[in-house]
Amino acid sequence: MDLLKERILKDGTVKPGNVLKVDSFLNHQMDIQLINEIGKEFKRLFSDCPVTKILTIEASGIGIACIAAQYFNVPVVFAKKTHTINLDGETYSARVQSFTHQTVYDVILSKKYLGPEDHVLLIDDFLANGCALQGLIEIVNEAGATLEGAGIVIEKGFQSGGKIIRDMGVRLESLAIIDSMSDSSLTFRN
Amino acid sequence: MDLLKERILKDGTVKPGNVLKVDSFLNHQMDIQLINEIGKEFKRLFSDCPVTKILTIEASGIGIACIAAQYFNVPVVFAKKTHTINLDGETYSARVQSFTHQTVYDVILSKKYLGPEDHVLLIDDFLANGCALQGLIEIVNEAGATLEGAGIVIEKGFQSGGKIIRDMGVRLESLAIIDSMSDSSLTFRN
Repeated sequence: MDLLKERILKDGTVKPGNVLKVDSFLNHQMDIQLINEIGKEFKRLFSDCPVTKILTIEASGIGIACIAAQYFNVPVVFAKKTHTINLDGETYSARVQSFTHQTVYDVILSKKYLGPEDHVLLIDDFLANGCALQGLIEIVNEAGATLEGAGIVIEKGFQSGGKIIRDMGVRLESLAIIDSMSDSSLTFRN
Repeated sequence: MDLLKERILKDGTVKPGNVLKVDSFLNHQMDIQLINEIGKEFKRLFSDCPVTKILTIEASGIGIACIAAQYFNVPVVFAKKTHTINLDGETYSARVQSFTHQTVYDVILSKKYLGPEDHVLLIDDFLANGCALQGLIEIVNEAGATLEGAGIVIEKGFQSGGKIIRDMGVRLESLAIIDSMSDSSLTFRN
């Protein structure tokens, strides 16, 4: 998606530890016009899928998922991050390791909002090691729902997440895949 | 907003401790068509305000703010909740007490995304004691920005937040104000 790649080159900044900051337009301040184009592009890419629900994870996935959902005309459900697992049996849950923050957390979703009848599209802003996305896939499987695919805004192609998710047989569409980045350069996969 | 009130009556449930659960359509699963109508209504209510930015707080405000922002054609910025205050001087911050979770947290926002030139509309899903909203107002003041108003989806009119915020002179528009609720009944302010 050229508009997105141009924006990353223009406004993204690379920080030590392979951190790409895009918080001026994607995940702190949000450029709603750009995110609208992102939503349209997800719809184009998954137009052949009978999506009934978009699943994302708080916090930065929510806005993107909501804008995209307008094009699919389906509800959004967002999984919540928690450090206190709910044991009442009313939630699906998966354990996720965060490399960025060096912590482990649980991702939970009420059982009321995902079931075997659902065809799920996952949406998130970033894919790096793939741990959050694997947590969401675990929840889709636990619900007995059909996973139609995953739409990611920015994939760090030099980290392992994309390969892991694709090797699982998941249809993964990333709008920009970064092959390498440093203080002075950033290259995309074609 | 009748459509919203009808939906609260139909799908909202009251839990002990004055908790109103609306997570089937507003803040866990999100009915995007309803939220679109909510966004339109905020635009109608604040159509005379020269809004340049919508400010909300993670997590459940984000989707509503993003959908609403389409009608204002402005960016969204979302404040982040953290328990570790950033002391590098690059963020605005405010301390917030959560009555719901009995904790204190800091709300932070990068100084890059709010300044004296901005005219800010605050958007959030709930107003109860008003602590989160007061935190956002503090940040707007710290930035030297102009506060145009606050748009809330559901206000618990029997708690003190609405009065506190209105007494501060803030233009507050709540789409549904609940005057009382119990297991068997729920009444709105007209």
